[in-house]
Amino acid sequence: MMKKTLTTLAVMSLCQLASADEGMWMPQQLPQVAKQLKAAGLKLDPATLTKLTEFPMGAIVSLGGCSASFVSPQGLVATNHHCVYNSVAHNSKPERNLLANGFLANSLEEELPASPGSRILVTKDVLNVSDKIIDKNTAKLQGKSRVDAIEKASKAIVAECEKDVGHRCNVYPYYGGLEFYLIKQLEIKDVRLVHAPPEGVGKFGGDTDNWMWPRHTGDYGFYRAYVSKDGKSADFSKDNVPYVPKHHLKLAKDNLKEGDFIMVLGYPGRTNRHRLPSEVAYTFDWNYPAFVKGSGDMLAIIAKETSDNPDAKLKYAGQVAGINNYYKNRQGMLDSYAGSDFLARKTKEHDELKAWINSNPARSKEYAADIEQVEKLIAERDAMGKRDFYLGNSSPRFLGTARSLYRLANETTKADAERKAGFQVRDLPRFKASIDAVERSYDEKVDKALVLYSLGKYAAQPKAERNANFDAAIGIKDGMTEAELKLLLDNLYAGSKLGDKAVRSTWLNAKPEDFKASKDSFIKAAVAMYEGSLKREADDEELAGKIQQAYGNYMKAKIAFMKSKGQAVYPDANSTLRVTFGKVTGRDHGTADGLAWNAFTTINGIPPKATGTGDFNAPAAQLAAIKAKDFGKFVDPQLKTVPVNYLATMDITGGNSGSAALNAKGEFIGLAFDGTLDSIISDWDYNKANTRSIQVDWRYMLWQMKHVDKADRLIKEMGAE
Amino acid sequence: MMKKTLTTLAVMSLCQLASADEGMWMPQQLPQVAKQLKAAGLKLDPATLTKLTEFPMGAIVSLGGCSASFVSPQGLVATNHHCVYNSVAHNSKPERNLLANGFLANSLEEELPASPGSRILVTKDVLNVSDKIIDKNTAKLQGKSRVDAIEKASKAIVAECEKDVGHRCNVYPYYGGLEFYLIKQLEIKDVRLVHAPPEGVGKFGGDTDNWMWPRHTGDYGFYRAYVSKDGKSADFSKDNVPYVPKHHLKLAKDNLKEGDFIMVLGYPGRTNRHRLPSEVAYTFDWNYPAFVKGSGDMLAIIAKETSDNPDAKLKYAGQVAGINNYYKNRQGMLDSYAGSDFLARKTKEHDELKAWINSNPARSKEYAADIEQVEKLIAERDAMGKRDFYLGNSSPRFLGTARSLYRLANETTKADAERKAGFQVRDLPRFKASIDAVERSYDEKVDKALVLYSLGKYAAQPKAERNANFDAAIGIKDGMTEAELKLLLDNLYAGSKLGDKAVRSTWLNAKPEDFKASKDSFIKAAVAMYEGSLKREADDEELAGKIQQAYGNYMKAKIAFMKSKGQAVYPDANSTLRVTFGKVTGRDHGTADGLAWNAFTTINGIPPKATGTGDFNAPAAQLAAIKAKDFGKFVDPQLKTVPVNYLATMDITGGNSGSAALNAKGEFIGLAFDGTLDSIISDWDYNKANTRSIQVDWRYMLWQMKHVDKADRLIKEMGAE
Repeated sequence: MMKKTLTTLAVMSLCQLASADEGMWMPQQLPQVAKQLKAAGLKLDPATLTKLTEFPMGAIVSLGGCSASFVSPQGLVATNHHCVYNSVAHNSKPERNLLANGFLANSLEEELPASPGSRILVTKDVLNVSDKIIDKNTAKLQGKSRVDAIEKASKAIVAECEKDVGHRCNVYPYYGGLEFYLIKQLEIKDVRLVHAPPEGVGKFGGDTDNWMWPRHTGDYGFYRAYVSKDGKSADFSKDNVPYVPKHHLKLAKDNLKEGDFIMVLGYPGRTNRHRLPSEVAYTFDWNYPAFVKGSGDMLAIIAKETSDNPDAKLKYAGQVAGINNYYKNRQGMLDSYAGSDFLARKTKEHDELKAWINSNPARSKEYAADIEQVEKLIAERDAMGKRDFYLGNSSPRFLGTARSLYRLANETTKADAERKAGFQVRDLPRFKASIDAVERSYDEKVDKALVLYSLGKYAAQPKAERNANFDAAIGIKDGMTEAELKLLLDNLYAGSKLGDKAVRSTWLNAKPEDFKASKDSFIKAAVAMYEGSLKREADDEELAGKIQQAYGNYMKAKIAFMKSKGQAVYPDANSTLRVTFGKVTGRDHGTADGLAWNAFTTINGIPPKATGTGDFNAPAAQLAAIKAKDFGKFVDPQLKTVPVNYLATMDITGGNSGSAALNAKGEFIGLAFDGTLDSIISDWDYNKANTRSIQVDWRYMLWQMKHVDKADRLIKEMGAE
Repeated sequence: MMKKTLTTLAVMSLCQLASADEGMWMPQQLPQVAKQLKAAGLKLDPATLTKLTEFPMGAIVSLGGCSASFVSPQGLVATNHHCVYNSVAHNSKPERNLLANGFLANSLEEELPASPGSRILVTKDVLNVSDKIIDKNTAKLQGKSRVDAIEKASKAIVAECEKDVGHRCNVYPYYGGLEFYLIKQLEIKDVRLVHAPPEGVGKFGGDTDNWMWPRHTGDYGFYRAYVSKDGKSADFSKDNVPYVPKHHLKLAKDNLKEGDFIMVLGYPGRTNRHRLPSEVAYTFDWNYPAFVKGSGDMLAIIAKETSDNPDAKLKYAGQVAGINNYYKNRQGMLDSYAGSDFLARKTKEHDELKAWINSNPARSKEYAADIEQVEKLIAERDAMGKRDFYLGNSSPRFLGTARSLYRLANETTKADAERKAGFQVRDLPRFKASIDAVERSYDEKVDKALVLYSLGKYAAQPKAERNANFDAAIGIKDGMTEAELKLLLDNLYAGSKLGDKAVRSTWLNAKPEDFKASKDSFIKAAVAMYEGSLKREADDEELAGKIQQAYGNYMKAKIAFMKSKGQAVYPDANSTLRVTFGKVTGRDHGTADGLAWNAFTTINGIPPKATGTGDFNAPAAQLAAIKAKDFGKFVDPQLKTVPVNYLATMDITGGNSGSAALNAKGEFIGLAFDGTLDSIISDWDYNKANTRSIQVDWRYMLWQMKHVDKADRLIKEMGAE
């Protein structure tokens, strides 16, 4: 499955338009590619796709990390199984294992609250605020003062926007921070789990099939948006009612076949298609290999520590899925990278850009210094990333909680507008929810084992490469043995009561003095680290401010260079609403020599894979329906059976999980949920030959719901029978 | 790889023409399908293909069980690696392992004698002799007297034909014995091994990939035909010279691509496409399952008994390959059968035939009784086959040798024309060679373990289902324990000197009295069994004669019925020269749902499979050449690399192994060597959707020979560089 990304504000880049299938278009850009859209087969007017509150854009929502869409007039939301996974896990208990058995609410009353912090976000407006974020004064600033000014302007715009109660506003940088857009979203806070098929359907193939083809995964699940009786965003309440969206997607009536037009609407997280050569080298030669090694070790530790503890296993199921997913993703990119000339091409392109700049005195004056500067600054940042690689995972979970709580107490002493982003009044509900939710995904024994693993590697680094502030706060000294580190951790964990939810709750409203007076081991460590952390944060912001300025100018140069060659550009993905279009099609080359990929898989492929256990535990009822050829009206006339998944030339990435796939008429034909292992390098280096998105076919969703899971209520609600 | 069949004289059948790709045409039938041949793309005049001594048919030869072709003016013969396998093994020793390392003669002098009994057979003439084999008198005969009359007529025709010294003649039944053809072949007896690539090329994929796609097997090898200085067939002699064929195949000059015309010329062994429903049921419900079980057990026994004996392992390598091949073949057919309605369709067709017969008094009078009779007789034969299933493998190898030698001594007392076929003067050289060759494929410990396995199962059958003659001769009694059977075998083996080649040789010229006086345990048993065996043979021939007559008439009815429906017919395969044509093409469905098969595999697929051991032990020199992209002129312009194997819609079966594949101009484009597991059921039930032959691409052969094995001498001889 595609990784679930969190919204990121990292520096974005841009990309040249290499083909009709490449491109994550901002809706307002679509008129620029209207001709290609019509040629590809779109039957709607491309202009309608630019209107966020019209059909079909009005039906597209974000879950914050996943994409989704309204598929009924009663606020029913379709997304991936792996996007509702945490909510299913949250409602699961060993004696009521909803992950294994699936969940189906037979009435509104039976619908269950989603995991804490779940949100359905409906984009209402996208506004270019570049001139307000970097005004004339800010443009002159450098380093931390520049970062502070951008943050201040951003907060002011957000605050103004959020005066419209029930909405969430954010400023996103585009084109490497050259442009900024204010995005206003209706924030639905009462999200309920409506239906998820058994894991043997929704996660069929599991980590074995993840990023693979052929694929037979029913990666779908349903939420419902609830609002107060007067239609406003509201916290969970029994009195809330289903939200009535202005638009919802209708199920396709026509058959879908190879070659058909398809578009995917959703919230892709991040691409890195125009990074510096040094960033490519750092990532592929050092960072990803180190990540892959560490992830493998961490998976082994979690497996060992939870082997005799089903409760802990359930609590870490989400984290294991996440690590596994990234592990395979990064390894897949490394495999593609190993066989490619990516770095050489990237270096050549960068050299050409510099030659173009240097070939003209005016251009040289405008850009040359910043290009040099950005190379130096990025090298500095990457060296720090390398140094702190193990530090990041060396903190016990509740030390992190303690530091967040103490920071909150300190920020709360300031006026709201002065507070650090993330600690403002608007952030408190999500902050509180995340503090509460720890309960569901934490086990002390597992956490300690994971921390000991990283801490051992961290502590073995030379003192100059360690963090003195962290060392002093928790007591790290040169040359500590594993036994000594373990004793240190044992004492730290034993000395804290933050594992108690009620205790954590009281700290949400505590004052800095209360923290300073506490004897709780993690609170004490958090207080000890505080000043040093602020200093480090200021240093980081100083570097970030310099990078922002230089990187922005580097990108400006790059855009100018590409325009000089007549090449159109679209911004790299940044977790905002995008459109990609292309066609349903297989591949003439698979991964093994001599095999090709068909565009569709079918339910006929499920029984041969079904081992009855582990990743391939197809439910008996499903296998019986397949054996009985109980296909009903969901049979494809060409395939003579029910399609399960299909491939298409969509340009998507993590964050697109759960995105609605639409046909030429804008009708619902399924959900994007994955890419293929040999094309995820496209996040960095678009590969036209290999890139395919994987969708779950809407006919499979409906077949499973009707013929196996008996979800007739939902099928009727979506307008089918 | 395709199974190597031995020539069989079993009852043949016929088949309706269902599609252009189905059909194993007798060369003389080709004018009937001239239109289809031209439409498929053949650029030669179809009439030229009917002339056995013209190009290209004059270049096509049989190895007796495999097919082959002349590819140079100096009698160089191309065939499959698995068709020269026994000759490579024959010349291998632990210290000079030609199987592992391959063999390349760098001059004529270095070419090695092939394994004893190896022959190259060039078909010179095909003559319809139906009226002579079953003349008016024979037509009236029944049972054994009918079989005797057919054999007598056949022997007379063969003897007349073989007056042309150096030729081998045989009468083959076609259309279930309705028609008989005399086939006259030049018999080249001095066959030498010229070249075979290492097993890691020629058998790459081994039993793992056998019958599979994608495939990367370089299944080719070269023999050379030698004759006396005056150009006559002759036994091996240093003075012999390469045979100069009247025609040889030329290497294709054009590229080969998907969709291209292709034809395969060779000697398919046997198909069973129009058997009785009861024969289908017997075969698939009992015989093949029993065979699969027994083969698995025998493979395990050989593996165990040779595990610490490399010499014995080498001796049984050929037999292991053969058992493995049939094992997978039969299991593949059983898998296809399990998912099919074959028996139901077969029963329906048979019922329709009977209804057609019974609907007309004249037809009913001519056929009805024989249809009833053939059903009864076949049931009887199948019951006997079931009864004697274990008996067949319960004889020690040298007991079989002793029985053959004693039979020879008895037959030799008669005039040559009166002798049983197989024991005539013309048969003696092959007979002697086979007695000699035992040496190379026999190990007493292994033989005894295999016999004990079958004998245990045989001895456990009720007395009425055992063979009293066999029991008496070797001492089987009711209720013997395994220990008792083992002791019995130990004594038998210890009491014989037939393991000594020189001893066996002396028995070749011994008289019946010498046998009767011998104390050799196997000779004694052979003498004891002799009279009973003759009686059993006579009973079998009585049954065979009845079946021949009834089956022939049943087939006549069937041909008439099919003609009444306007359907053309071609005879089932019977180890005689046939032509099949179609096109090079992959499959839109592979074996796994969601995967398709490309028409070609390439050398790029070899390194990912190469484990450096076992079935995937690609030579280091080959891997280095692939890594270095040392493709030379053998690169395919579309694939951008060297093709290895390709799929085509050829209708071939066992015996076609080594068949030349020709393009539309009749040029050499490779060698057929296999089919795919889900289409071998086509031997019984032609499956148009699945049936694909697998060929080794001539460009891969040449690439490997030039760029890796340095076989420049042969490449030049074939007219390339």
